[in-house]
Amino acid sequence: MKKITQTLIAGLALTVLAGTASAQVVGKSEDQIRWRQSAYHTMGWSMGRIKANVEGTFNKDQVIEAANVIQAIANSKMGALYQPGTETGKGWKNTQAKAELFTDKEGVGKVAMGFGKEANEMAKVAASGDAAAVKAQFGKLGESCKACHEKFRVKD
Amino acid sequence: MKKITQTLIAGLALTVLAGTASAQVVGKSEDQIRWRQSAYHTMGWSMGRIKANVEGTFNKDQVIEAANVIQAIANSKMGALYQPGTETGKGWKNTQAKAELFTDKEGVGKVAMGFGKEANEMAKVAASGDAAAVKAQFGKLGESCKACHEKFRVKD
Repeated sequence: MKKITQTLIAGLALTVLAGTASAQVVGKSEDQIRWRQSAYHTMGWSMGRIKANVEGTFNKDQVIEAANVIQAIANSKMGALYQPGTETGKGWKNTQAKAELFTDKEGVGKVAMGFGKEANEMAKVAASGDAAAVKAQFGKLGESCKACHEKFRVKD
Repeated sequence: MKKITQTLIAGLALTVLAGTASAQVVGKSEDQIRWRQSAYHTMGWSMGRIKANVEGTFNKDQVIEAANVIQAIANSKMGALYQPGTETGKGWKNTQAKAELFTDKEGVGKVAMGFGKEANEMAKVAASGDAAAVKAQFGKLGESCKACHEKFRVKD
């Protein structure tokens, strides 16, 4: 069972990283790096919005808008932006991707699946409008971001 | 009727631009500029993906993923990222927003509503999986992007 799980995770990791087999690669290396940095920053803005609502006056609509952005990007198979040749290089700035992000398929699969799961749950919880549940799920989502940052991102 | 429509558009424009009355402003001016540039680039990546699918092998899932990202961002009330003090300045690069974007409420309302309408329709058409309809809607969506760029964005 453990082996089956590992194989499954490795397979999913490849899918997450490479997109589907028929993924059409768009953009040069520098475009890909710029787009992935842009996508992460767009999610960062959205995380900031949820945080402001959790810590300040809670506005259900704002939380839904932000959670939907995170969910859509989390499900967009950003792995297609990690083509060979983008291990180093500059988009808006130098990529902070560690070399392991391109080699540790199993590790990447784990953090990617964890993030996808929490992002989908965040959108669901946001739609409920339950402020306490949003706060709890926001914490879990943040942890799933952090899990990848700690393992695969060079520190600022 | 014309006046009512104009008032409605102006009201919506204010909403689009400023978010809801209770919008919680997050980020410093440079963060706001960087986030809006990031969001536009994330949509640019997604437009590129749809284009590649329309012009190459059509993959329904990829088009849905990309259309969902555009829709989520289009509905995220990015107007909150255009706070006073962000008329000029640098995020990833100098802002390309024209001064009119901060003053022409009615004009901004029109292009913002047009874009939102086409983005929502794009997501709907993508879900249908009809390649010809996707191609047609992609054209309309592109036109709605262009309408804003031509009026409110400084050329590259």
